[in-house]
Amino acid sequence: MKKAAFIMGSASDLTIVEKGIQILKDFGVPFEVHIYSAHRTPREASEFAGKARANGFGVIIAAAGMAAHLAGAMAANTVLPVIGIPIKSDTLDGLDSLLSTVQMPSGIPVATVAINGSVNAALLCVEILALSDDNLMEKLVSYRKSAAESSLAKDRETNEKYKA
Amino acid sequence: MKKAAFIMGSASDLTIVEKGIQILKDFGVPFEVHIYSAHRTPREASEFAGKARANGFGVIIAAAGMAAHLAGAMAANTVLPVIGIPIKSDTLDGLDSLLSTVQMPSGIPVATVAINGSVNAALLCVEILALSDDNLMEKLVSYRKSAAESSLAKDRETNEKYKA
Amino acid sequence: MKKAAFIMGSASDLTIVEKGIQILKDFGVPFEVHIYSAHRTPREASEFAGKARANGFGVIIAAAGMAAHLAGAMAANTVLPVIGIPIKSDTLDGLDSLLSTVQMPSGIPVATVAINGSVNAALLCVEILALSDDNLMEKLVSYRKSAAESSLAKDRETNEKYKA
Amino acid sequence: MKKAAFIMGSASDLTIVEKGIQILKDFGVPFEVHIYSAHRTPREASEFAGKARANGFGVIIAAAGMAAHLAGAMAANTVLPVIGIPIKSDTLDGLDSLLSTVQMPSGIPVATVAINGSVNAALLCVEILALSDDNLMEKLVSYRKSAAESSLAKDRETNEKYKA
Amino acid sequence: MKKAAFIMGSASDLTIVEKGIQILKDFGVPFEVHIYSAHRTPREASEFAGKARANGFGVIIAAAGMAAHLAGAMAANTVLPVIGIPIKSDTLDGLDSLLSTVQMPSGIPVATVAINGSVNAALLCVEILALSDDNLMEKLVSYRKSAAESSLAKDRETNEKYKA
Amino acid sequence: MKKAAFIMGSASDLTIVEKGIQILKDFGVPFEVHIYSAHRTPREASEFAGKARANGFGVIIAAAGMAAHLAGAMAANTVLPVIGIPIKSDTLDGLDSLLSTVQMPSGIPVATVAINGSVNAALLCVEILALSDDNLMEKLVSYRKSAAESSLAKDRETNEKYKA
Amino acid sequence: MKKAAFIMGSASDLTIVEKGIQILKDFGVPFEVHIYSAHRTPREASEFAGKARANGFGVIIAAAGMAAHLAGAMAANTVLPVIGIPIKSDTLDGLDSLLSTVQMPSGIPVATVAINGSVNAALLCVEILALSDDNLMEKLVSYRKSAAESSLAKDRETNEKYKA
Amino acid sequence: MKKAAFIMGSASDLTIVEKGIQILKDFGVPFEVHIYSAHRTPREASEFAGKARANGFGVIIAAAGMAAHLAGAMAANTVLPVIGIPIKSDTLDGLDSLLSTVQMPSGIPVATVAINGSVNAALLCVEILALSDDNLMEKLVSYRKSAAESSLAKDRETNEKYKA
Repeated sequence: MKKAAFIMGSASDLTIVEKGIQILKDFGVPFEVHIYSAHRTPREASEFAGKARANGFGVIIAAAGMAAHLAGAMAANTVLPVIGIPIKSDTLDGLDSLLSTVQMPSGIPVATVAINGSVNAALLCVEILALSDDNLMEKLVSYRKSAAESSLAKDRETNEKYKA
Repeated sequence: MKKAAFIMGSASDLTIVEKGIQILKDFGVPFEVHIYSAHRTPREASEFAGKARANGFGVIIAAAGMAAHLAGAMAANTVLPVIGIPIKSDTLDGLDSLLSTVQMPSGIPVATVAINGSVNAALLCVEILALSDDNLMEKLVSYRKSAAESSLAKDRETNEKYKA
Repeated sequence: MKKAAFIMGSASDLTIVEKGIQILKDFGVPFEVHIYSAHRTPREASEFAGKARANGFGVIIAAAGMAAHLAGAMAANTVLPVIGIPIKSDTLDGLDSLLSTVQMPSGIPVATVAINGSVNAALLCVEILALSDDNLMEKLVSYRKSAAESSLAKDRETNEKYKA
Repeated sequence: MKKAAFIMGSASDLTIVEKGIQILKDFGVPFEVHIYSAHRTPREASEFAGKARANGFGVIIAAAGMAAHLAGAMAANTVLPVIGIPIKSDTLDGLDSLLSTVQMPSGIPVATVAINGSVNAALLCVEILALSDDNLMEKLVSYRKSAAESSLAKDRETNEKYKA
Repeated sequence: MKKAAFIMGSASDLTIVEKGIQILKDFGVPFEVHIYSAHRTPREASEFAGKARANGFGVIIAAAGMAAHLAGAMAANTVLPVIGIPIKSDTLDGLDSLLSTVQMPSGIPVATVAINGSVNAALLCVEILALSDDNLMEKLVSYRKSAAESSLAKDRETNEKYKA
Repeated sequence: MKKAAFIMGSASDLTIVEKGIQILKDFGVPFEVHIYSAHRTPREASEFAGKARANGFGVIIAAAGMAAHLAGAMAANTVLPVIGIPIKSDTLDGLDSLLSTVQMPSGIPVATVAINGSVNAALLCVEILALSDDNLMEKLVSYRKSAAESSLAKDRETNEKYKA
Repeated sequence: MKKAAFIMGSASDLTIVEKGIQILKDFGVPFEVHIYSAHRTPREASEFAGKARANGFGVIIAAAGMAAHLAGAMAANTVLPVIGIPIKSDTLDGLDSLLSTVQMPSGIPVATVAINGSVNAALLCVEILALSDDNLMEKLVSYRKSAAESSLAKDRETNEKYKA
Repeated sequence: MKKAAFIMGSASDLTIVEKGIQILKDFGVPFEVHIYSAHRTPREASEFAGKARANGFGVIIAAAGMAAHLAGAMAANTVLPVIGIPIKSDTLDGLDSLLSTVQMPSGIPVATVAINGSVNAALLCVEILALSDDNLMEKLVSYRKSAAESSLAKDRETNEKYKA
C-alpha cells in the first residue's frame, strides 16, 4: 500500500493532528509524520512534496493555522492528492485557516476538510487509498457500520430515557 | 479505469459544473453527469451514492449551493471519496455553501474545493484516480508543466512590457 | 394531539436540547426523542421522517451542529413542518450550523430558530400544534403573560434600586 | 381554513414577496397582504398581530430587510406561528436581515427561512395549515412529487446530453 | 435638565449597563432605569417610549442582545434621540446585536455605539444633553482632559520603563 | 439654532451624503458641508472639530468609507455629539466602514447609523437639535406622521390589489 | 537606489497592479514586473525571492487573490520587506485574499495593505526606500502636500456649493 | 541606525506589545515605547508622528484594538513607514481591529501584520531598517536560519516518535 504523509506546520498542531494519526494506525495505513512549515522551512516542505510520489507516498495530509499555506505549498509541488486541515488559532475562530486552505486558484486543488477536522482528513485519506485496496475498503465499510450502530444504540437509550 | 460521477443539485449549477466536466473529458476519465437534489430527490440521491461503488464509480463530485447538503448526503451513503463544490448563490457570496459543504462532522469526510471550484474538483478527482493509473498520472504531470509554462510565458511578456 | 419528534444529530447536543424537551413537557405535548444523524445514520433519519405523519407526529424538531444537514434531511422526506435548531460547535461560533440550517433551497422549507434556540423551537412547535387545540393555545397565552409579568417585576425591582 | 397574513415592511419588498403570494394562491390558502413597518407604523403592526387570531388568521408571514424587526414585532404580539423572511438589502448581502430575524431571544420564536426565501415561507405556512386539513396535505404531497419528477426529468436530459 | 432613560431588554444585561449608569451618576444627569423587552413586554416598551418626551426625558438609551430590537422599538415610538447598545450574547460574538441595532431603515435612526459600549452610550447621552447645559459641557471637557492626562501619565511611565 | 456640520472624507461620498443634506434643508437646520479627510488632511479635520463648538456648531455628521476614521477623529477633538455614517466602498460591502466607525473605545463615543445611512444621520441630528427647539420637534412629529401615512396608504393599495 | 519588484500571481491581476506600477514610475523608483504564482510556478517564485537581495532589489510587492499565498511564499524566501496586496476575486469580496495575506504566523512578516490597495503598496515601498534616499523622501512630502491641497480645493468648492 | 517607535493605544495592549519589544532588543534596534491614543490624546499622537523623522525615527509601529485608528493617525502625519498591529479585544475576535487598520484609503498606507502580530511587526521593522544596515541584515538571516533549524529539529523528533 502507498504511504500517507501527515505534515503539520508547527509542533503546536500536534494535539489536533494526533486524532487523525490514530485513525491511520487503526486502519493499518503506513505513514510518516513531519513538521514542515511553508514559511519557516519552505525548501524542505517543497522538497518533501516534490519527492513524495517517488518516495512511495500516495496521499499528503497537511495541517496548518492562520494564513495556512502548507497544504497549498504541498499541492503546488506534487500531483498526489493533498488533503488540507485548517487549524483554528487564537483569533478569528479558524476562518482565516479555512479560507487560506480551501480557496485555491484553478489548477492546484486542495481537498479541504472541516476546521480541526483531523479525523476526517485521515478517513478521506483511507477512502482514497482504499480505491485500490479491497481489504481497506472493507475496513471502511465496517467502520461506518459500527459508527452507525453506536449512534443507534445511543438513540435507543435516549428514546427510552425520555419516554413520557 | 473507475468512473467519475459528476452530480449537481440543480440544473442551474450547470454553467459552473461544465468547466469541470471538460477537464474530465480532457483527461479521458469516464464519467456520468446527474442532477440529484438532497432535498427534492433525496431517495434517488441516496440510492445513487449507495450503489456507486458497485456500479463502477471511483469518485463522486457533488456541486450544490445555499444549505449545500448534496456532497454530505452522498458521503453519508458511500465510502468512496466524495468531492464537494460549494456553488455561490444569490446571497451571502458563497459562504453558506462553503460552510455547509466543508464543516462535516467527524466520521463522514467531504473533500471540499473552492467556491465554484469546478475545475479543481475535476483535477482532484483525476489525481485520486491517477494513483492507480500511471498513464493518467503522466497526463497530470504534463498538464501542470504546461500550466507553468503558460504562466512563465505571460511573465516574460509582462516583464518585457514594463521594462523601464 | 399530534406528537412532536425531537431529533438531535449527536448525543452531545443533549445539553441544549433538554431545555426544549422541558418546554414540551410543561405544555403537555406528547413527544419522542431520537438521535439520528444525517451522516452517520442517514437511512434511519430518512425513514423516520418518511413515516412520521403516519406514526402520529405533527411537527419534527431537528437539532444539529457544523454542516447541520439534519433538519434539511428531515424536511426532504416529509411535508410536516420541520423546525431546525442550529447547534454551536467548537469553531465558527454557530455560523456554520445557522447557514446550513436556514439557507434551504426553494421547495423544502426548514423553520429555523436562533443558534442553540432549543426553547424557542419547542415553543414554535407548541404554537403550531395549538392552532387546532384551543386548550394548548390558552396555555401559550398564559405562558406569555407570566413571562411578561416576571419581566415587569424585574423592571420594578431594578427601577427602584437605581432610583436617584 | 384559517387565513394567512403576508406582511412586508416596505412596498419595495413586493418583488420578493410576490413569489410567496403565488404559492398561497396555488394552494388555495385564503390570505391578506399588508404593508406594516415595525418602525414607521409600529402601532398598526402591533395591533394587526394582536388581533390576528381573533380575525381568523392562523399564520403570519413577515418579510423585512436590514435591522429586520417586523417578524419579531409580530411574534411579540401574538401566539400564532410567525414566519420570518429576511430580505436582502443594498449592503451586507442579507446577513443583517437574517440575524435580526432569526436570533430571537428565548420566549418569542420566529420561524425563519432563507434570505429572500419567500416561496419556502409560503410552503411552510401551507405545511402548518395542512396539519388540520387533509386536502391541503394531499396538495403538498403532490407538489413535492411533481417537483421531484421535474428534477428527475432534468436529470435524464442532462445525463443523456453528457453521455460520453 | 431633561432626564435620561436607561432601558435594557433583560436583567442579565445589567452587568454591562451598570458601567453606563455610573457615568450618568458621575455627571449628575437625572435618570431612570427600566427593564422592558421589545419581545416579552412590547406594550410597556412602546408606551414608555411614546410618553417619554411628555414625562421629561430627553434621551433614551436601550441595551439589548441577539436580535436586538429594543432600541429600534423605542425609536419607532418617539422622536427623542435613541442610543442603542448592542449586547454580546453567547453566540456570534455580538455581531447579531450590532447589526440588529445599527442597520435601521431610513426614517427611524438609532445612534449605535460599540458592542457592550455602555460607557460610551452614557457619554453620548451627556454630550447631547450638554448642548443646552453649559455646566454639563464643562464637566465633559474636564472628563476628557483628565482621561488624556491619565493616558499621558501612563505614557511617561511606560516610556521610562522601556528606555534602553 | 446651532449649526450642523456635514463632513465627508472624500468627494466621492457626495452621492450618499446629499440625501442627508436634503433632510437638513427640509427641516430648516443651518449647516455647512466640508470635505476633510482623517488621512489626507488630518490637521484641518482636527482643527475643524476643535473649533466647532466655538464656531456655533451643535452636531457634527461625518461620512467615510473603508478604515473609516473620520467620525472618530472628529469625536477625539470635540465634546459635541458626532454622528458617523459608514460608507460602503468597493470591497467588503461596508463591513470595514461600519466596524471602523462604531467600535470606538471607551471614552470617545460616535453615534453610528446604518451603512450609507445618510438620511438617518441627518434625522438623528435634527432629533438632537430639536431637544432645545420645540418648533423643530413639531416638524419631526409631522415628518413621522406623514411617513406613517404614506406607508399606510401603500398598505391599503397593496391590500386591495391582492384581495382574493 | 535599490529596485522594487512588483510580482503578481496571475495576468488577470494586472488591472489592479498597474495603478501601483504608475506610482513607482512617478517616483522614479527602478522596478521589475513579474508574474509568478505560488501554486503554478512555485520554484520560480521561490528562486526569485531567494535571489532578490543579491539581484539589487530592496522591496518585493506581491499581489494575489483567493488563497493568496504569493506574498507569504516570497517572504519565506527572503529577509527583504515583502508587501502583500490582497486581490478581490469573484467570491467572498476579498476576505479570503486579505486573511491569507495578513494572518502570517510569527517569524515571517508580510506588510499587508487594503484589498486591491495597489497604490498604497507602491507608496509604502517608496516610503521604505526613501529612508535611505532624501530626494525620494522629499518627493513623498510633496506628494502628500499636493494630495492635501487637492482635497482642500474640493472642500472649498463643495462648501461653496452647499452654502445656504 | 534610525530608531523605532513602538506606540500603543492603551496600557492594556502591553502584554501583546512586549513580545515585539523583545525582538527589537534582541536585534539591537534602538527604540522608544509610547502610549498615545488616536482618541484620548489625538494631539500628542499627531505631534509625535509629525516630528518622528526629525527626531531620528525610521519606522513607527502602532498597536491598537477595536476601531483601531492609531496606525492610520500616525501614517496621516508622517511619510515614514508605519506598521499597524490590530489588537484583539473582547468582541468580534479582532476583525474590527484588523479592518480598521488595514483598509486604509489610497494615499496613506499602513503596513498591517496579523491580529496580535507583535513579533512580526518588530521583524518587519528590522527588515526595513536592515536595508541600509548590512550588520542587521546578517542578524536577520541568522534569525531565520535558527528558526528553520529549530523547526527541523522538532520535525526529526516528531518523525522519530511516530515511526510505525
